[in-house]
Amino acid sequence: MWRPTEVADPFSHEIRVTWADCDPAFIAYTGRIPYFALDAINAWWEEHIGGGWYQMELDLGWGTPFVHMSLDFRAPVTPRHRLNCTVWPVALGQKSITFEVKGYQNEILCFEGRFVSVFITAGSLDTRTAPDSVQTIVAGINPEACAAKPEK
Amino acid sequence: MWRPTEVADPFSHEIRVTWADCDPAFIAYTGRIPYFALDAINAWWEEHIGGGWYQMELDLGWGTPFVHMSLDFRAPVTPRHRLNCTVWPVALGQKSITFEVKGYQNEILCFEGRFVSVFITAGSLDTRTAPDSVQTIVAGINPEACAAKPEK
Amino acid sequence: MWRPTEVADPFSHEIRVTWADCDPAFIAYTGRIPYFALDAINAWWEEHIGGGWYQMELDLGWGTPFVHMSLDFRAPVTPRHRLNCTVWPVALGQKSITFEVKGYQNEILCFEGRFVSVFITAGSLDTRTAPDSVQTIVAGINPEACAAKPEK
Amino acid sequence: MWRPTEVADPFSHEIRVTWADCDPAFIAYTGRIPYFALDAINAWWEEHIGGGWYQMELDLGWGTPFVHMSLDFRAPVTPRHRLNCTVWPVALGQKSITFEVKGYQNEILCFEGRFVSVFITAGSLDTRTAPDSVQTIVAGINPEACAAKPEK
Repeated sequence: MWRPTEVADPFSHEIRVTWADCDPAFIAYTGRIPYFALDAINAWWEEHIGGGWYQMELDLGWGTPFVHMSLDFRAPVTPRHRLNCTVWPVALGQKSITFEVKGYQNEILCFEGRFVSVFITAGSLDTRTAPDSVQTIVAGINPEACAAKPEK
Repeated sequence: MWRPTEVADPFSHEIRVTWADCDPAFIAYTGRIPYFALDAINAWWEEHIGGGWYQMELDLGWGTPFVHMSLDFRAPVTPRHRLNCTVWPVALGQKSITFEVKGYQNEILCFEGRFVSVFITAGSLDTRTAPDSVQTIVAGINPEACAAKPEK
Repeated sequence: MWRPTEVADPFSHEIRVTWADCDPAFIAYTGRIPYFALDAINAWWEEHIGGGWYQMELDLGWGTPFVHMSLDFRAPVTPRHRLNCTVWPVALGQKSITFEVKGYQNEILCFEGRFVSVFITAGSLDTRTAPDSVQTIVAGINPEACAAKPEK
Repeated sequence: MWRPTEVADPFSHEIRVTWADCDPAFIAYTGRIPYFALDAINAWWEEHIGGGWYQMELDLGWGTPFVHMSLDFRAPVTPRHRLNCTVWPVALGQKSITFEVKGYQNEILCFEGRFVSVFITAGSLDTRTAPDSVQTIVAGINPEACAAKPEK
C-alpha cells in the first residue's frame, strides 16, 4: 500500500459536510463521496496550476477527464467534523495521471480512492501528452509517481 | 469476467440525462456518473423488493450501505440519448451483495462499474446476514451469484 | 391567480424521488425542490421543441437563463410516491417567459412556484425576442399567457 | 428595500464555485444557486448556535424547514471568483424566521433572495415558537427583525 514519502506532505483540502449532504441514515449519501474526492482533486489543481478544471479548460487549453475511479468506504462521513481530503499523485504516465485521495474526519480514515485521468486537448476527446508544467509539478511532489507504471 | 446468462436479462433502468447534469465540456460531469449508477441500483431494489433504500430502511428494517465502488468511464454521457443502466447481481455473500452496473446510450457502453454493499440492521452500523427474501431474489435472477466468492 | 383553462391540461412531468434526494428529516432536501421544478421545465421544452436546454443551446442557437424563481413549500416531498410536476406557461413577454410549476404527490400539492427566464442568443448574455416557434407553442397552450403582462 | 444597519455587518459565508457547479453555458447551473444560498444559511446557524441543521435537529431538538424561497438572479456565478454570501435575518416572527441572502463575486451582486423557515420540534411537522436563544441572537444582530412583520 502506498505511503506518502518524507518528500512532502500530501496536499489537503477541507470540506464542510452539512445536512444537505446527508441521507436519512444521518450520514453523507454515498453518491456525495465521489463529489468530495473530485472536489479535492480540483482543489489540488487550483493549488498547483493556479486554477481548477474550469481555468484549465478555458485558459490553458487542456483538460483531464476521468477514465477510472475506485473507492473504499471505511467509515461514515457526517457533519460532526470537517472532512480533510489528502490528494497525492501516485502515477504520471505519458498521457495520464493517477491520484490517491483519502478522506479523514477527526483523524479517522473515512474513505480512500484512486482516480485516473487522461490528458486531452480542450474541447475535444483527443488525448495528448502531459503538459510539461504538470511533469515538473509532480516530479517536485512525488518523484516516484513519474517512474510509476500507470494503472490504465 | 461476468456475462449475463440466458436465465434472465439484466434489469435496466432508464435515466433522462439533462443540461443540469452537464459540465462546461458539454458532457455529464464525472461526479454525476456514480449517482446514475446508484440510482439504477436503487431502482433494482424497487423492482425486486417493492421499494428502494428509503422503504428498505424505514419499512423493512435493514439497509445496504456501500463499502466499495469502482467505475470505468468508456464514453461520454450526454443529453443526446436516454441513459440505460443495466444492473446485475454478480455476488451474494453471507453479509454482502455485489452489483455490476453498465450504462449505455444509443447502444454504446458509456461506463461500467462494480458496487459492493453490506447488509446492516436499519439505524445501526451492525452488519447482518442477507435477508432470505434477497437470497431468493438473487437465486432466481443469477444463481451463479450465490456461489460467487464476494470481492470484499 | 392563474387557473388552468379548459384549453389544455398542463404538461406533467413525473419524477422518481429517492433516498438520494432525502435528508435526515426523511424528506426531500429543500435544495432539491428547485432542481425538480427546473427538471420539469426542461422536460416541458423537450416535449414542445423536441429537446431540452442542451439541444436548445447547441442546436437551436438560443437559451433561456433564469432571472427569477419563487417557491412555496406546502407539504413534504418523500419517496413514498412519484412526484408529478405540472408546468404551465403563464406569461410570454417580448423577451421573457414565465412558468408556473406545481408539484404533487398522491394528489397533494407539495410545492408551487414561478420561474422567469429571458431569451438569449446562445453563448452570450444578449437578450433577444422570443423565437416565433415559442410564440406559436405558447399561443396554442395558453393564449392568455401571450397577453399577460410579464412579472419582470 | 432592506439595507444592513450600522449595528452589525451581515454574516458572510465563502463558497468555492467550481467546474462541478457549472453547466455548458460556463456558469453555475441555476439549480445550484438555491443550494449555495441554503449553504450560507446553514453556515449562519453554525456561526450563531454552534452547529448547522444537523446539530440543530439531532442535538437541540428543533428544526427550521423552509416554507418559502424567492431569488432574483442578477449576474452569472462562475469559478472565476469565490462566492461571498451574506446572510441577514430580516424578520423573526413568533414561529418563523426570514433571511435575506445576497451572493457576491468580485463585489458584484450575483443573486439575492429571501428564505422563510418555520420552527418545528425535531422529528415532527409540529410548529413551535422560536427558541429563546434564537430570539436573543437575532435581537443582537438586527433588532428591527424582531419587530418586523413576517412575510408568511
